[in-house]
Amino acid sequence: MNYSFAPQTKNYESSAVRDILKVTQQAHIISFAGGLPAEDIFPLEAVKNAYEQVFASGKSSLQYGLTEGYIPLREAIQSRMSRKGISSTPENILLTTGSQQVIDLFSRIMLAPGDVVLTEDPTYLSALQVFQSYGANVVAVKSDEHGMEPDDLKVKLEQLHPKFVYIIPTFSNPDGKVWSNERREILLSLCYENDVLILEDDPYGDIQFNQDEKYKPVASLDSYQSHVLYTSTFSKSVVPALRTGWVTGPLEVVQMMAKAKQMNDLHSSSIDQQALYYLLRDFNLDEHIEHVRKEYYLRMCIMRDYLQRLGSDLFTWKEPKGGMFMWVEGNENINTTTLLHEAVENGVAFVPGAPFYVNQPKYNTFRLNFSHSTPEKIKLGMDRLVEVLLKPAILK
Amino acid sequence: MNYSFAPQTKNYESSAVRDILKVTQQAHIISFAGGLPAEDIFPLEAVKNAYEQVFASGKSSLQYGLTEGYIPLREAIQSRMSRKGISSTPENILLTTGSQQVIDLFSRIMLAPGDVVLTEDPTYLSALQVFQSYGANVVAVKSDEHGMEPDDLKVKLEQLHPKFVYIIPTFSNPDGKVWSNERREILLSLCYENDVLILEDDPYGDIQFNQDEKYKPVASLDSYQSHVLYTSTFSKSVVPALRTGWVTGPLEVVQMMAKAKQMNDLHSSSIDQQALYYLLRDFNLDEHIEHVRKEYYLRMCIMRDYLQRLGSDLFTWKEPKGGMFMWVEGNENINTTTLLHEAVENGVAFVPGAPFYVNQPKYNTFRLNFSHSTPEKIKLGMDRLVEVLLKPAILK
Repeated sequence: MNYSFAPQTKNYESSAVRDILKVTQQAHIISFAGGLPAEDIFPLEAVKNAYEQVFASGKSSLQYGLTEGYIPLREAIQSRMSRKGISSTPENILLTTGSQQVIDLFSRIMLAPGDVVLTEDPTYLSALQVFQSYGANVVAVKSDEHGMEPDDLKVKLEQLHPKFVYIIPTFSNPDGKVWSNERREILLSLCYENDVLILEDDPYGDIQFNQDEKYKPVASLDSYQSHVLYTSTFSKSVVPALRTGWVTGPLEVVQMMAKAKQMNDLHSSSIDQQALYYLLRDFNLDEHIEHVRKEYYLRMCIMRDYLQRLGSDLFTWKEPKGGMFMWVEGNENINTTTLLHEAVENGVAFVPGAPFYVNQPKYNTFRLNFSHSTPEKIKLGMDRLVEVLLKPAILK
Repeated sequence: MNYSFAPQTKNYESSAVRDILKVTQQAHIISFAGGLPAEDIFPLEAVKNAYEQVFASGKSSLQYGLTEGYIPLREAIQSRMSRKGISSTPENILLTTGSQQVIDLFSRIMLAPGDVVLTEDPTYLSALQVFQSYGANVVAVKSDEHGMEPDDLKVKLEQLHPKFVYIIPTFSNPDGKVWSNERREILLSLCYENDVLILEDDPYGDIQFNQDEKYKPVASLDSYQSHVLYTSTFSKSVVPALRTGWVTGPLEVVQMMAKAKQMNDLHSSSIDQQALYYLLRDFNLDEHIEHVRKEYYLRMCIMRDYLQRLGSDLFTWKEPKGGMFMWVEGNENINTTTLLHEAVENGVAFVPGAPFYVNQPKYNTFRLNFSHSTPEKIKLGMDRLVEVLLKPAILK
């Protein structure tokens, strides 16, 4: 039979990152390609104890739950967010299956084909795919190292009337960038003027290497909770398998997302949500996050020291202040997809940067993940990678 | 700010069932309204042991998983389905957050505004809402006690060119009906002729009171796995909080659903999926399902005996052969929404039947759930309900 799918499926693409992950799952390859957290420091015992608490609470823990999610966990998230300056109530927090589901549900209630979404460039590949799957016209705003450039942003807000602006202002995926506080304020003020919503995606904000600088979530500046939807997740700070993310923002918008979620899956796993509640209650998550920060910083430093051997005429990169990624730009002659094949042959993998761009891909960029591999593996993998990057074939 | 949602949100309605559930959650009300399984017979110990197995397997159990779901669980599901005559492979099984997500993902890849979906009438309210949220034109096929009527089905398949037919052929929600095997075969053969897909929703099939009759899943008749998408869930047979459902069917369709799921939420909780795998391995699920059947049959009988007091001039109903629901039709003068208010005043609740209809609601119908309340509560609740149903106000 010839299956006649809906027209919007023409915009579906299997993620390039995902396809590469398949190739690089062979045991002998050291992969810096995925965006996985460090397995070796997962708090297994604490997670196990949290689930024991769930089952000790009795059979009602196994019944259907609310679409919006387990209330005690929403209260705990409210309290954690207030420490970041974000005010919320359990009513305008919606628990989801990772923050990926927030991106999808928000797009679902906002976007009709042809609607404009403004993003950074490069930005999170899977968000781009979601926006495009709803037929959105994704437009990149010019950015520098401090965030979106105010002039270009202003013009695009005024002329294109976007439905929302999507940003990862703190240790972005893929390029690890962090916005200055000034740019955050400018973005919000321009969005106020043009009555445009902001989707602030903050999965990495907790993983800040140096605590001296203080980056304010844009949501914390939105005093009336009128224009910013803030999403984060426990996938990076606790463990990914729990698949628990959340969103907070204007009540009316969050409630509409809950309606969409009700149709989408009724509710996410409530055993996981209850376990997370006990974990936040009984386990010192802040201490654990501190440990994650130190460990990721150590791993980043190892990777950085290898990159320093390359010489800036061939490759340029900036040391990230947090998160899980380093972003490398080669000189114009370098095609990182070609390079990837050579790297894989040499037993190491990364992700070419092109798919992260909105419509003018830079084929000379790539992303390295420093969180997943142990320090030993990073050394071994970077030995292999630097060997490939310094080959005469590339130098010519 | 005035939030300008996408046009399709105009089709969103908060579920009437959901709103009623809120009202009836007060402790003094005995609710036959929801569709909840019996909490008192949940296999808590077995579930607890299964999670212990997950954590004993080490830290990698907490890492990101595959979009398609945990492979050993897909293999176990394949083997369970083959016992029902449904052939599948792990490759064409997609694990989801309950079978609600299957309904949503399938609609997402199939439906554009104006596309026709054929359904039974009445049918599962939340499926109707999903189809309508994608702008589908839902058309009811005439049905009798054996299933959809072949003549009407044939005409509608040929004239309306639907994208798919949605059915719950075994112990339907809301009316508990079961299709004859003949009607299942006719449906499939007509769908073959017209090259139309079938979404077979089977959450209740395992809960069959009398094992003498054998109902064949429509998917088991579809030898080449070309036209039927079959979905079921562990929410009813194990526990709902795990939120694990699945779909199997034509590989090309399941793969497209996996792409949609990747954008929707990357993957469902893999801790839950792993726990279910160990549960199926170490726990006698068939014995447990047998226990569930017996218990639900007992509860249904208690409810049935009360309904028999009503007299068929006022209310008619059929004894269900499985599932979780009884469906009652009052005489034409009766409005069950009015009746609900009186029932709630008397400390008992049900769901009016009108929202389950596609477009010609019968206001004189209602649904009773017999699975959730204990036998004692059913007696108490039915005492209260029969009192309301036999009031002189209704008899007039």
